[in-house]
Parts: sequence; C-alpha cells; structure tokens
Amino acid sequence: MAIKTGIVGAAGFAGIELTRLVLHHPGLELTVVTSNELAGAPISDEYPGFAGATSLVFSKHDNPDLYQCDLVFLAVPHTAALAMAPSFVDKGIAVIDLSADFRLKNPHVYEQWYGVLHKELDLLEQAAFGLPELFPDDLKRLAQDKAEGKGVLVACAGCYPTATSLAAAPLLRAGLACDNATVVVDAISGISGAGKAPTTRTHFCSANENIEAYGVSTHRHTPEIEQILGIENRLVFTPHLAPSNRGLLSTVYLSLAGNVSTDYDSIEKVYRSFYEESPFVRVLDNRAMPKTSSVVGTNNAHIGFAVHDATRTVIAVCAIDNLAKGAAGQAVQCANVVLGFPENCGFDLMAIPV
Amino acid sequence: MAIKTGIVGAAGFAGIELTRLVLHHPGLELTVVTSNELAGAPISDEYPGFAGATSLVFSKHDNPDLYQCDLVFLAVPHTAALAMAPSFVDKGIAVIDLSADFRLKNPHVYEQWYGVLHKELDLLEQAAFGLPELFPDDLKRLAQDKAEGKGVLVACAGCYPTATSLAAAPLLRAGLACDNATVVVDAISGISGAGKAPTTRTHFCSANENIEAYGVSTHRHTPEIEQILGIENRLVFTPHLAPSNRGLLSTVYLSLAGNVSTDYDSIEKVYRSFYEESPFVRVLDNRAMPKTSSVVGTNNAHIGFAVHDATRTVIAVCAIDNLAKGAAGQAVQCANVVLGFPENCGFDLMAIPV
Amino acid sequence: MAIKTGIVGAAGFAGIELTRLVLHHPGLELTVVTSNELAGAPISDEYPGFAGATSLVFSKHDNPDLYQCDLVFLAVPHTAALAMAPSFVDKGIAVIDLSADFRLKNPHVYEQWYGVLHKELDLLEQAAFGLPELFPDDLKRLAQDKAEGKGVLVACAGCYPTATSLAAAPLLRAGLACDNATVVVDAISGISGAGKAPTTRTHFCSANENIEAYGVSTHRHTPEIEQILGIENRLVFTPHLAPSNRGLLSTVYLSLAGNVSTDYDSIEKVYRSFYEESPFVRVLDNRAMPKTSSVVGTNNAHIGFAVHDATRTVIAVCAIDNLAKGAAGQAVQCANVVLGFPENCGFDLMAIPV
Amino acid sequence: MAIKTGIVGAAGFAGIELTRLVLHHPGLELTVVTSNELAGAPISDEYPGFAGATSLVFSKHDNPDLYQCDLVFLAVPHTAALAMAPSFVDKGIAVIDLSADFRLKNPHVYEQWYGVLHKELDLLEQAAFGLPELFPDDLKRLAQDKAEGKGVLVACAGCYPTATSLAAAPLLRAGLACDNATVVVDAISGISGAGKAPTTRTHFCSANENIEAYGVSTHRHTPEIEQILGIENRLVFTPHLAPSNRGLLSTVYLSLAGNVSTDYDSIEKVYRSFYEESPFVRVLDNRAMPKTSSVVGTNNAHIGFAVHDATRTVIAVCAIDNLAKGAAGQAVQCANVVLGFPENCGFDLMAIPV
Repeated sequence: MAIKTGIVGAAGFAGIELTRLVLHHPGLELTVVTSNELAGAPISDEYPGFAGATSLVFSKHDNPDLYQCDLVFLAVPHTAALAMAPSFVDKGIAVIDLSADFRLKNPHVYEQWYGVLHKELDLLEQAAFGLPELFPDDLKRLAQDKAEGKGVLVACAGCYPTATSLAAAPLLRAGLACDNATVVVDAISGISGAGKAPTTRTHFCSANENIEAYGVSTHRHTPEIEQILGIENRLVFTPHLAPSNRGLLSTVYLSLAGNVSTDYDSIEKVYRSFYEESPFVRVLDNRAMPKTSSVVGTNNAHIGFAVHDATRTVIAVCAIDNLAKGAAGQAVQCANVVLGFPENCGFDLMAIPV
Repeated sequence: MAIKTGIVGAAGFAGIELTRLVLHHPGLELTVVTSNELAGAPISDEYPGFAGATSLVFSKHDNPDLYQCDLVFLAVPHTAALAMAPSFVDKGIAVIDLSADFRLKNPHVYEQWYGVLHKELDLLEQAAFGLPELFPDDLKRLAQDKAEGKGVLVACAGCYPTATSLAAAPLLRAGLACDNATVVVDAISGISGAGKAPTTRTHFCSANENIEAYGVSTHRHTPEIEQILGIENRLVFTPHLAPSNRGLLSTVYLSLAGNVSTDYDSIEKVYRSFYEESPFVRVLDNRAMPKTSSVVGTNNAHIGFAVHDATRTVIAVCAIDNLAKGAAGQAVQCANVVLGFPENCGFDLMAIPV
Repeated sequence: MAIKTGIVGAAGFAGIELTRLVLHHPGLELTVVTSNELAGAPISDEYPGFAGATSLVFSKHDNPDLYQCDLVFLAVPHTAALAMAPSFVDKGIAVIDLSADFRLKNPHVYEQWYGVLHKELDLLEQAAFGLPELFPDDLKRLAQDKAEGKGVLVACAGCYPTATSLAAAPLLRAGLACDNATVVVDAISGISGAGKAPTTRTHFCSANENIEAYGVSTHRHTPEIEQILGIENRLVFTPHLAPSNRGLLSTVYLSLAGNVSTDYDSIEKVYRSFYEESPFVRVLDNRAMPKTSSVVGTNNAHIGFAVHDATRTVIAVCAIDNLAKGAAGQAVQCANVVLGFPENCGFDLMAIPV
Repeated sequence: MAIKTGIVGAAGFAGIELTRLVLHHPGLELTVVTSNELAGAPISDEYPGFAGATSLVFSKHDNPDLYQCDLVFLAVPHTAALAMAPSFVDKGIAVIDLSADFRLKNPHVYEQWYGVLHKELDLLEQAAFGLPELFPDDLKRLAQDKAEGKGVLVACAGCYPTATSLAAAPLLRAGLACDNATVVVDAISGISGAGKAPTTRTHFCSANENIEAYGVSTHRHTPEIEQILGIENRLVFTPHLAPSNRGLLSTVYLSLAGNVSTDYDSIEKVYRSFYEESPFVRVLDNRAMPKTSSVVGTNNAHIGFAVHDATRTVIAVCAIDNLAKGAAGQAVQCANVVLGFPENCGFDLMAIPV
C-alpha cells in the first residue's frame, strides 16, 4: 500500500521537483502539497506541465492532513523547518528536511552562519545526514527506528556540498589527500539554485549572457562541506552562476599526500571501488569529464578527474542536477532508504538527450 | 513478452529521443540501434546521459538483426527511408517512419517539394498517416493488418504539421472556419528542429540571442499541412527559430465562417469535445495560452485560443515538444496503436517543472 | 555647445539604454538621471558596465535640475508621463516621451485601452508621433517650434508598432495592399520587452527554454498599430516571448490588392524606394530574411519579405532591437530631428557580430 | 591620415570583432579583409550586422594589397601565423598576431604544446608580448622601432592568460604571494571561445543548458600563464564552458606569503595602485565581484577579490570579453601603443546594459 506523503513548501523550485518525483514514485501517494502563498490554487495553475498528471491543490502549511501522512518533506526556508520538524517527528512521521536547519552538527556553527540560535538540540543529535553515498549507516539507523514506529528526521545535504563531497570523499577517506593542505572548491550552478523568488539577480536579462562569482568565501555551504569532508578551516569555496536552468558542476582541487602515486589508473581504481555499489554515482570512462546536461532531470552524479603531476594535484569534477541529486532527488533517495524501498525506487528517469 | 525493436538512425536528435522513449517503454525491448557514422560506439559515448541505462552499441544501418525485430523505427533523412521501408514491410515488420517519404499522398506533390521521384506507390497508398488524434481509423486499419501478420508502414506527421493541425482541425472539421479564406500559420521552433548536423545556423553563437524567420512560404511542411487540413493553396506558413533546445509553438489564424458565433465559450466547447478522448492533447483552462516549457520532454500538446471579434478571427495556439509529439513521441504513440498497446503506454513522464 | 539633457526614469531598461546612447552622443550632455527607487546611488552601482564611463548619480524624479535641461526624456510608465510632460513643455523644453501617454490621437481610445481619462488634450493634439521614417513632417514641425523657443512633445512609437509599421507601411501607403482585408501581425520579442521588474514571467527559469504567446488580441499596442497604418478593426496582433535579452521580430501578412502583381522585384522596388533616404532602415539583399542578432545594440531596422502567389500574400518581416529602435534609439533619433542634429548623429555603433 | 590596415582571417570570431573595432577606430582605415573560405563575399553576407557600415569584400589570404598596409592583424590559427608573419615584418609593417605562435619565448615549450618546430627564432626573440598592462616596455620598444621604419611583431596574449594574469599579477609582482605554492586557476568561458567552426561541441543543443570542464590540466594556455606570471610548474588550470556567447571569468587562488597581512584594505591598495594608470582595468568598489555582462563588447577588465583568512588565500576574479580584451580588443590596444595612438583610442564603446 502506498505511503501517504506530504510536501510542505511544494511551490518552490525544490518543492515542485519533489512533487514531480513523488508523483512518479510507485510506493508513495502524494496527499498534501502546501504553499502559503498559493493556497487554494491547483498545482497546474502555477506549473501547467502538471495539468493532467494531478489535480492536487496547494493548501496552507498548517494543513492538519499533514499529520495523517507517514512521510513529510520539508522544502521551506531555513529556520522555518526548525520550527516545523519536531511536531511531525513527535507524531512518528518520517521527516525529510531539505533545509539547512539540521545539517550542521555543531549548533554554534549553525548560529554563526545562519544567525539563529538552534533550540532543537535533541532532534539535531538524532537527525541523520542525508547523503546516502557517504553516510549510509546514519540512514539505516533511522530505517530501523522508523520500522519500530518512531518518528525520524533526515537533514538532506545541500547542492554544492553534495557535488563537492562526492568528488572529494573517495580520496580523502582513503587517506590519499594531504591532511593539512588547502582544498579549493570552485563550483558553477544554474540559476534555479538562486530560488524561485523573482529578484534582480534572477531576472532573465540579468542572468542571461552573464557569468559571475558570488558569496566568495562567505557562502553558507562552506561549513557543511567542511563537516562532511572533515576539512575544517582548510576549505576555500567559490560558487559561480551561469545561465542554465539546472545543473551544478563542482571542480575540486586536492593535493595528494606525500607518498601517493600520481598514476591515473591507481586513482581511478579508488574512485570506482568507492562507488561500486552506488546506483546513482558514475565515474566516467575514458578520462571523460562530466557535463551537467547529462544528469539534468535525474538523480545521477557524474564524476571525472585528472591528475596534474607537477603540483601533485587531483582535479576532480562532479556534475549533478542541483534540484534533483542536489535537493529533491536526494530527499526521495533518503526516503527510500528510511522507508525500506530500494534506494533507486522511482528513479527510472533518464536525462533528456538533447 | 516485450516486442523486439530497432531504430535506424538512432544517433540523430529524433533517433536518440526515440531511444530514450523505447528504453522507457514497458512493452518494447530495444535490440538494435543504428548509425552509419557512429557504428561501433556505445550510445553513452555520444550521449553520456545514457550511461548506466543501456549498454547498446550503434551498428550500421544494414545490420541484419533489424530483420529479427517486430518493430522498426526509421529516423533517417527523407529519400533514405524511401529506400529502406519496403524490405522491412515485406518481412512483416511494423515500420514507423519519421521521415517525409510516405506522408504526401500525391506522389507528384512529393516530387515537387522533395525533388525525388516516388517509386513506392503501393506502399505509399497503404501507409497510414501518423497523427493519431486526427486519423485514428487509418492506424486502426494497420493494427488489424499487423495482428494478421502483415507488415505495415506509418508515415508520422512532421513537427510543424502536428502542432498546426492540432490547433486548426477542430474548427475546420466542424465547418466553423471559412472554407475559402487564407489560413496564416506562424510558428516558432527551438534549434533542435534544425537537426544534429553542426552548421553555421546551429552554432551556439549564431542561434543564441537571435530570432529569425526561415523558409518563408517555401518550407516543405507546407504541402503536408495543406493535405492534413484540406486547405490546398490557402495556407501561408512562416516558420521561425528561437534560442531554445526544444519546443515548438504554432499560432494559427482562422477566419470564422459567415454565420458562426464569435462567442468564446461555444468555440471552447468544440475544442474540448474534439479532444475529449485524447490522452495527450489538453485544451487549457481559463483562457490560458500554452508555453512550450510545459510540454518539453513529454508527448503532450497544449492548446489555447482567443477570438478577435472585429475580424472574426480565431487565433489558436498549440505547443508541443518538436522532438517528442513532433517526432519520436508521436512515433511511439503510433506504434502503440498499431501494436495494440494503450495509446499512452510508456508515457508516464512529466515535463521538468523548472 | 552640448545640450543639457535629463532622463526621467533612467534606471529601467529603456532608461538605461537611453543613458548609454546619450552619453555616447557628441551633441548632448547628460546632466540629470532620475530613479525614485535608486535615488542616491551611482548608475554604476546598478549597472556596473557604466563604471568609468560616468559618475552620475540617480536623483528623484522631482529633481529641479531637470528644468535646467533643454531636452528631457521621459522613460516612466504610462500615466506617469501624462502627469509630468506638461510642466516641462511649459518651460520650453523638448520632451521626448517613451510612454504610451501621447501616442493615441483619440483620447477615448486611450481611455479604453489604458483605463485612464486623458486630461491633456491640447498637448495631445500638438504632440508629434515619434516614428521618423513614417511621420517626418510631424517632427519637422516641432523642430521649427523648438527653434522658436517653444516647448515641444514627441510621443515615441512603441516597440511592436515600430517594427510592424516599418514592415507594412510601404505596401499600405502605396495602395498595394487590400484596403479591407484582415492584417495579421505575429511578433516575437526578447524578454527585456517585459521590463525590469522581477516577476514570475521574467524569472530566468520561467523565460529560459520557453516560447509563448501573450496578450493575444488584447495587447495595448493594437490601437497604436491601427492608428499608424490606418487599419482600424482590421488588425489581428499576436505578440510572443522568446528567450533572448533583446531583439524583436515582427512578421506581417498583407493581402495584395486586386490588380497588383505578385512579382517579387516590383514589390522590392517599392520597399527600396520607400526607405531610400532612411539612414536606419535596410531592405535586405538577395531575398534574405532579417535576424534580430544583426540589429541588437543599434538603431537599425532590417526588412525582408516573401510573396506567396497562391494566396497573393506578402509576408514582410522586420527585425529591430526593442530597446533601441523600439524605444531609446528611436527617442534619440527623434531628439536629433527636433534639435536639428543629423538624424543619425550619435549612432556610429555596430551590432556586436557574435 | 588614417593608417592603412589589413586583417588576415577576418571571418573568424576574433577576426570579425577586429573588423568591428578597426572600422570604429578614428585613426585606422580598413583596406583589406581576408578569408580563404569566404573570398569574394561581402562581409555583410556572412555578418549582416555590417550591412551599411562597410562594403568591404573578403579576399584570399595572399592578397598582395596587404603589403600596402602599414598595420596587419593576423587572426589565423597557430602555425599559419608562423608562416605569414615574417614577410610582413620584413616589409616594415606592424604585425599584430592574435595566434599563439610567438607568445612562448622558449621554442621548446612551443614545440611541446603545439607539436610544431619553431623556425622563426629571431622574430620570436624580437616580438613583444601583447598584454600592455603587464608588459608596457616591450610595446614601447616596438613603438620606437616602428617610428624608425622597422617592421615589428606583437604576440597578443590569449584570452585565459589575459584574465588570469590581470587578476594575479599585482600580488605576485609585489611579492605578496607565496613563491612556491600551487596556483589554482579555475576559469569559465562563453562558447565563442571555442571558435567559429561548427562542431558537436559548439552546436546550440550541446552547448545550451550545459556546463562542463574541458582540457583539464592539458589546455595550451597553461604554459602561457606560467610564463607571464613566472609560476612554471606551479599552475593548475581548469577551463570550463558555459552557455553564453561571450564573456570569460577567471577565478585565481593565491596563497599569501608568510608575513603578509590578510587585511582586505591593504591588498585592495596594492590592486588599485597597480592599475591606477590603466584605462581598461577596473578594480571594483565595495568588494563587488565582476560580472561578464558588464564588460562584453568592451576592452575592459573588471577585477574583484576576497581574502580567506583561515587558509590565507586571496581569491581574485577577473571578467573580460574573450573576443575583445581576450583577443581583438587587446590587439587594437597593442596597435595603439605601437603606432603612437592613445592606448584607448577607438574604445569609446560601453557594454550594452541589458
């Protein structure tokens, strides 16, 4: 029997992508979609592509029907999720939070970067970090809890942290990268990463035919990447915007540790072995480099890398869809693990080839 | 048991979209994909988004395994399909031709517009025209033939003819439009409509930030639209290119016949009634006008219209994905009808909402 | 000595293009730029491309220095210009209004389409219509008045009316087009035509990869085109949006009058002769069709046409830059005529070729 | 009297931008434009935006009229310039070479990266490196030679080297950056950087909605950047493509030397002082980061930077137009210096603001 599912904040870019994925999922039944701003309107009024696929109507965030769900996704801004999550967990619901509110394990770091005191310390401690390729045990623990009827909370990784960590983790975890060198991360995102709110920055005529860096060394995904990779105070992170709807490419520069060979093949083996079991991560053949167009619309991550001998640097590049593997897709992947579905259940979608 | 399926010309834009759709179709098993140019290469070398989804390798067009298929799609240039189709039909195969070779029922018109003498007159006569919403009986006849073990040929409608005819047919067939007035069709296509061959026109820096008309009153889809709608010598057709990968919008101007009311609601009823049974065509609510972004990646056609009182003109607008409903999607839809699948089998795909 | 010039509403898209053009003009000295929203900010804060080119700072619309100018451009929304224009004209200033407030000669038509009672009937009557290729005498009359020290007002034509009328006027004025047939105008604009305000429609992720019709048979440029061309109640006008910053293409369908030859060359002569003296309008050679990319950044209009014999229809296509010849460029061209500069003074700019 | 000027290879992207700039330059008279492929065609056939601006016709590269010029630009592929340059220099002509053939001072490095033996060692030694902000004396030396009637050769810097070096040189030359640390350069270019030849990579449907890295640690601009900045074997360079016609952004990561303060203001002073005299380079105010849209169409370079305390890294970002300051604009700037014009003569062009 399909699991009743609600999405809080379904009208934003991550929320509507979640809506698409949940509607497509064979084990989930979407029963509630909320948007305070669009309450009362059918989804297909705002997103005409949903016409015929669903007749669901947005309701307010406080729709009590959410408590009849067994799975609730929170696709609301940070601090809003902080306020909402506990009541759902208390009711035994599996909560998949796409915001940043429960990602940073150290509440002081959260306060420093988000300017808000974290008051849900117990829930923060119990929450699993939602990046299944790197933290599978965390999610399995929640699957166990949920099976026993307990409410659980997954704090899904952000878009830049996901692409960056998938590119960097194999080398760092294998101890092949210097453990004290600076890690440079230079990433490029499509404009949907800036959210649905119409602003000067997201105006077509500002974003089109423009490339720029933003949030240089101040972006809030910095502490998240540091935490995932264990590289506190060693990360320099520069995000850029490029004129594409979706797609995120992270280029990571790692210095090889002193005695490690710069041989391409031996490093390739480390990557392939690391992602051997992963249904979504693909290390490209023939030294190919990833293209965002190959993963848009899917939950896939494509990885390529090169080795620069003279400086003993590995340049690892990962492409994801920022709204899918970087947000909604990862959320559904986490839900799959927590609820006992196959990890890739509902993901029989390929990228549009042209 | 899944039907063995081959795609001749699978590396072009329509061919690769067909590949995506056939791989996704629960009743079809893709066994052969051909490309003379890329023979020997895995699909995923040319289109990395297919990595993990299939390990099929392009073979040459003359791959004899095609004759083991029960369904063969021809996604080759016009005149090439003319040469290939008969041998497949003779073997009892269902052939779905995406080229223009068997669309025009009058071989002299074909010769006039394509510069080639049509030599397959029997097959031309037997071929069904592949636009299921407007010519369902034609396809049902073939379904019957195929069920009896005969080879059959479907000549799928082109992209502009599909969008244009879906917008215009309800009024013309109901006799609401003047039967001697000029019909203006002004359409806009994304760049994939110009095909995969790299040319000056398809170079990113030519096509981007540019809008232009082309083939004004000389485009080869002109006689096809005339034939479908029965408006010979009354059609003025102007295609345009706009910088988008996919998407085609056709705006059709029809003069209402003398005694017909210009009342919006009564015309709306005609449209709604006409497409009542169609799983793919949607007449938009609330006088909304279609957006190509709502249909890209799907086989859907969205239709909106307005009535201009003073000139008694209906402006009907139809949006499709030129590579899906305008090519590969329609081909699979036709195959569904011919092979006895539900018409929308394999089409549980929604447009990406952002 | 350079003429002191002010721009009211300089921060919008037309206003900032005016700023660029006036700064480049050898006979004009830009002294005041206003924006109520950005008052106090240097232009280059909002538009960093102006860094180094000017240190002008936006002031409020009520900046009294405007009255020290001899030339004032109004690039404010309609109804705002209605309120502002008289006080400048009264002071003997040449006012070039880019809004719609003084374009429609019949105040009832204005009220009908803009929902506002027109109270400046004298000024409306005296105003010249700013489309120099079609109404040169109007502007020369103002040049005379201005030379005598009087304030004057030019109501510049809108973007769609400019492109459409340049394409259609030669045939209509020569009496070659039917004087009672419907005129279909199907036009496509880049997104800057929708203005600077960030909205859902202008969000990059809505506008990109999308083509749509809007304002079908209800767009406010309809009565303006009718007035210019003298085709009241015969115009069906459908504007579209395509994902490009700038550029506007208008495709006009005109039925040839009964005895007129459909010979291409004879019609070409009419066009060439009509624009023989125009520095900005170019009838393309070799039956070429215009591309918006060839005119973006310039005040040029490119025209191409085809003749459809069977229906005796001329399809005339005109490409302009909606912010230049469709707004700011035309405004400067009108100012040139009124102030006695050569019509193309300040327009030594070519389109960027790639 | 205007200087007779020829452009060899005027039909490519850099060549046609040169054509635009030379036509606009008050001291240059464009007399010859060559293209072997398009010989015989007017420029405006290939680039319709030039209609009305020039009636020049492409001739073959071996047009003897080139030897009547006093200034010849070579915008041909590498190795072709190697073969052409000497004959022009020998005739006393000022040659501005946009290719890579005379950029690398060490002919072995040239051979290693370009696979061609360098045979013009004398000319290589005499050539000036064309990056006026960093090597002004080199160009002044040539100005002297040219004034004495000698032929001279400028080897203009490439696009990535220009943006990268402008961002990095102030710190490196001031000795503020570590002299043995790895320098990471992560750059993004618009598609025109890939040249005019239509290929799969430059097809609109491949390049649009895609972001990718290419030539990772193997791009030929690597040794050029190393030479300019004196960082041999310390550079890791990763270029990316993003869907924009023009625009190039280079993000450079420099480790501060041991005793250098990470204080933003003191580093800002170094940058401002370094570019104080430069008409084209602008260090942005208020810690702003550059946008490519602010410099496209101009010869300007915009620079912003941030300091990351924990890792003592300066992240310096430079935006240029790859075809202007990264190619044709720089070439004209170099010609200005060599011929005694003001450095910014002919560059009264602003970026289009929208």
